[in-house]
Amino acid sequence: MRNIDAWRRWLPALPILDWGRRYDREALTGDLVAAVIVTIMLIPQSLAYALLAGLPAEAGLYASVAPLLLYAVFGSSRVLAVGPVAVVSLMTATTIGEYTAPGSPDYWPAAITLAFLSGAMLLAMGLLRLGFLANFLSHPVISGFISASGILIAASQLKTLMGVKAEGHTLVDLLISLGGQVPDTHLPTFAIGASTAAFLFWVRKRLEPLLVRAGVGRRLAAVIAKTGPVFAIAVTVTLTWWFDLHTHGVRIAGAIPRGLPPLTMPSLDLVLWRELAMPALLISVVGFVESVSVGQTLAAKRRQRIEPDQELVALGASNLSASFTGGFPVTGGFARSVVNFDAGARTPAAGAFTAVGIAVASLLLTPALYFLPQATLAATIVVAVISLVDFGILRRTWTYSKPDFAAVAVTLVATLTLGVEPGLVAGVAVSLALYLFRTSRPHIAMVGLVPGTEHFRNVLRHQVLVSPRLVSLRVDESLYFANARSLEDRVNDAVANHPDLRHVVLQCSAINDIDASALESLESIEARLRDAGIALHLSEVKGPVMDRLQATDFVRHLSGRIFLTQFQAIAALTPELLAARSATGPAGEPAELPPRSVG
Amino acid sequence: MRNIDAWRRWLPALPILDWGRRYDREALTGDLVAAVIVTIMLIPQSLAYALLAGLPAEAGLYASVAPLLLYAVFGSSRVLAVGPVAVVSLMTATTIGEYTAPGSPDYWPAAITLAFLSGAMLLAMGLLRLGFLANFLSHPVISGFISASGILIAASQLKTLMGVKAEGHTLVDLLISLGGQVPDTHLPTFAIGASTAAFLFWVRKRLEPLLVRAGVGRRLAAVIAKTGPVFAIAVTVTLTWWFDLHTHGVRIAGAIPRGLPPLTMPSLDLVLWRELAMPALLISVVGFVESVSVGQTLAAKRRQRIEPDQELVALGASNLSASFTGGFPVTGGFARSVVNFDAGARTPAAGAFTAVGIAVASLLLTPALYFLPQATLAATIVVAVISLVDFGILRRTWTYSKPDFAAVAVTLVATLTLGVEPGLVAGVAVSLALYLFRTSRPHIAMVGLVPGTEHFRNVLRHQVLVSPRLVSLRVDESLYFANARSLEDRVNDAVANHPDLRHVVLQCSAINDIDASALESLESIEARLRDAGIALHLSEVKGPVMDRLQATDFVRHLSGRIFLTQFQAIAALTPELLAARSATGPAGEPAELPPRSVG
Repeated sequence: MRNIDAWRRWLPALPILDWGRRYDREALTGDLVAAVIVTIMLIPQSLAYALLAGLPAEAGLYASVAPLLLYAVFGSSRVLAVGPVAVVSLMTATTIGEYTAPGSPDYWPAAITLAFLSGAMLLAMGLLRLGFLANFLSHPVISGFISASGILIAASQLKTLMGVKAEGHTLVDLLISLGGQVPDTHLPTFAIGASTAAFLFWVRKRLEPLLVRAGVGRRLAAVIAKTGPVFAIAVTVTLTWWFDLHTHGVRIAGAIPRGLPPLTMPSLDLVLWRELAMPALLISVVGFVESVSVGQTLAAKRRQRIEPDQELVALGASNLSASFTGGFPVTGGFARSVVNFDAGARTPAAGAFTAVGIAVASLLLTPALYFLPQATLAATIVVAVISLVDFGILRRTWTYSKPDFAAVAVTLVATLTLGVEPGLVAGVAVSLALYLFRTSRPHIAMVGLVPGTEHFRNVLRHQVLVSPRLVSLRVDESLYFANARSLEDRVNDAVANHPDLRHVVLQCSAINDIDASALESLESIEARLRDAGIALHLSEVKGPVMDRLQATDFVRHLSGRIFLTQFQAIAALTPELLAARSATGPAGEPAELPPRSVG
Repeated sequence: MRNIDAWRRWLPALPILDWGRRYDREALTGDLVAAVIVTIMLIPQSLAYALLAGLPAEAGLYASVAPLLLYAVFGSSRVLAVGPVAVVSLMTATTIGEYTAPGSPDYWPAAITLAFLSGAMLLAMGLLRLGFLANFLSHPVISGFISASGILIAASQLKTLMGVKAEGHTLVDLLISLGGQVPDTHLPTFAIGASTAAFLFWVRKRLEPLLVRAGVGRRLAAVIAKTGPVFAIAVTVTLTWWFDLHTHGVRIAGAIPRGLPPLTMPSLDLVLWRELAMPALLISVVGFVESVSVGQTLAAKRRQRIEPDQELVALGASNLSASFTGGFPVTGGFARSVVNFDAGARTPAAGAFTAVGIAVASLLLTPALYFLPQATLAATIVVAVISLVDFGILRRTWTYSKPDFAAVAVTLVATLTLGVEPGLVAGVAVSLALYLFRTSRPHIAMVGLVPGTEHFRNVLRHQVLVSPRLVSLRVDESLYFANARSLEDRVNDAVANHPDLRHVVLQCSAINDIDASALESLESIEARLRDAGIALHLSEVKGPVMDRLQATDFVRHLSGRIFLTQFQAIAALTPELLAARSATGPAGEPAELPPRSVG
């Protein structure tokens, strides 16, 4: 039994066994209703994101069947709706575009291989419990990256909206390429694209409040507003068919093969694998972060939890299944998960029902999409991604914290000018470097006793009692190699500026860890102070830190003492300060001491 | 005036103007005595390290004149002795050895260019005040790197000691190459090398205590022990000359050109620059770290200070001057700075006098070094570097902290097996990754009230009072992007495990910073808790953190309150706990509450 349990720890969990056992009629109703609505929403999205990824429209449908079924088995979120999403589709297009041109016979197989590698990586990360790695993508980096991706995606769709050809993976390339094409704009195409976009914007911004004011329930209104793209498709397909617009140069989806997703195999070409490995990793991480954020937000609303490592396994299985059924990289989508939740989905079975819906659509509906103008899909993409763009983050981070602002700005600018992958890597590098930089210059306050209390405060901010014989320093950061020298410098400063110094007390209340380098720094601080006839004391050392220090030579040979509280240290080392304190009376007015000037 | 002051901030300081003004006879005496002793010590070292760097012996003398003069002008340490040192010479040999073979006409010019690039980088880093970057080399990484370098250097000298040829930049290559050569060992050479090494070990370990016991002053004994290499040179030169050993195959230094350092120019070949840039940076950082460590240690003994950024400027100027006078990369040496200090050096003028001494030696003494066996120099190197090797660091870090142990071990193994540069880079990468990993999994304690006090402790470690309606979490780390999600997870856990939960209090006493990502996490924690009908409160928020939070929507719309102390939070939110506390009486025995089990 024990061995089985030990093995089980390494096997992925099957959440379906948990919720499946308690499945009832109420859950079935909720899931079925949600699945119908999500299916209606997913059909245009899956077609559009396939085109964004540089693939035939049917690839989007294929990527919305098997992955949803696999997620329903392994996923720990009850309501996450998996499938093609905008940013991951853009990253797919960029990656495969480096390797071969869209439409070439190698393109789709490469996208399938990318899904395979991404799935394998996600699965491996999940089994190795590496979900925490995604934490190193900071919110500002994600935000800058998503905004920049939104702009890039919108720019990349302009050519389809205008009915021209343009290329480029950076904003500058795209805009230059587009700029030259403006005179060639195909007006009927542009009319369809622009009016669809305007309609969809109106639906997004105005329809929902209108419906609510007309007495429709708030939740139903939100769901109806999400069906805008389907309505736009129906109208533009009808118009194109009626007026034979495709014979006038309006590009249409054309013949989408009818049938279930095909059985496909990823390429086993190791050269291709090496080329796709890094992009696959970035796609995996971005997809995982997007998926977990929405999953967590929705789970918390029902006091449920999701397991990040289990999500990695589930997304890994989904992407692997995409690679075997003609799809491309998928992940949990924000908008459609929210719709799924609002529409009443109770369990991952809703996702499985959606998969059935999409399968039925790809069996029956594809002939109806023959006349679908590509400009309509481009308009749905533009409207969807514009909502991703949030320049407010620049202002908010500028106000709150300059390093965070720098991380957003670098990610945004690098993604727009260098492309999605260098942008993401630059953002992570800058945010880590800034974090390390900040912790390498810790706030170290020289503190003194607040008269009439047992509290100690910064001598620069408060009127406090100090002695020329004793300096108290409070370090507001864990001590580690990058900041240990700062402390040495600060102690050296104090020694150089206090000729009568006899005691240095380090108040350690905010020190959560002391690594080996910092321990050596403490030892050399202690040795230098000892050479200069000054004792080093510690106060308010935390339990876990003290546990480790206890066994060291530093503590065994410390010239000074370790005090439970800073006040005890002062009471023992400079009792004259306390006399001054009581002399000033309980009111605590330090009449005899001039106020410290703020330096 | 203001403009001049503003400009002056950007100009390097000239410490010589400070100590030069107050120079007196006493300082002069101390400096002269120290200079004579350091000169005697530096002559064999400079020759030996030139050979280690793959250069002719005279390059070592050249590198010990101009750099010392420049350091005397710009250096902020009173006693640092600059010149060729072992580790930097090894790094020079490795770098230039990648580019061309030792002895080829391109070799020395490349070393000169390396000194130029390193000097320019150090100077630029000093003017840009980037001295803090060296802090990212942790003590364990430096220690592992120096030990591994010592082993590599000793191994590289074995061939000279044995009178054979061997090559390789990694330990494995060197040992394999040497292993094949053992039968070819040149016995007279090996006899000289081995007996010199044995003599020098004896001098290092035994002579000083012997002299002290014989009544010689402790400081003088230490200085005499440092002249061992000069004595060994005198003896082996005499033996070689007397017995014509060079005609029997003992390799000798040969004709060392007499004269002052030549005027040289670094190459301006940008391709070479690009190849040398990364090594030059690593050499600069390693040299700077070595120099600053010894400079700080010695300065503190006299209650003086050194300025790291000024040291960068001084080392930059020294290396630039080395590149214009036929030298190679130099830095402050540990052993010779200690000798300089012990011999009574008072100001950097001692360094200038040493430079004069070396200049005189290179004018007069070089003919006497014609018969100097290379094995003697190899022996001095081996004995010098063996003292750098410290495997104790492995045991010490293993006991104290496993991440530090990992950093030492990775650096040591990578340096020995992959070479000095990959070793150093791997060490820095691993130590940063481990630091980030640790801070990404902060210690978060669920705390409860210690009965009869106002203190709060970990519920897993102490017998404390808790309420099913309130959870208090204390985060022992600053909140930033990599650990914000941990807190979300922990709060989600708490919510899932406490069905009656109404209040969550975050005790922020150890939180020194909250970045924008963490703020967003707090916002989403707050929003999720609010959706679940739970209020989020904060307590003991630090001043600087509160300053920043004050202006945010998070604080403005917080569902709960911000308490000055954790006790006030409990008193306000769960007064029934305090009733239980007083019911147990002042002794604080929580009679009615079962002790918490340790999870």
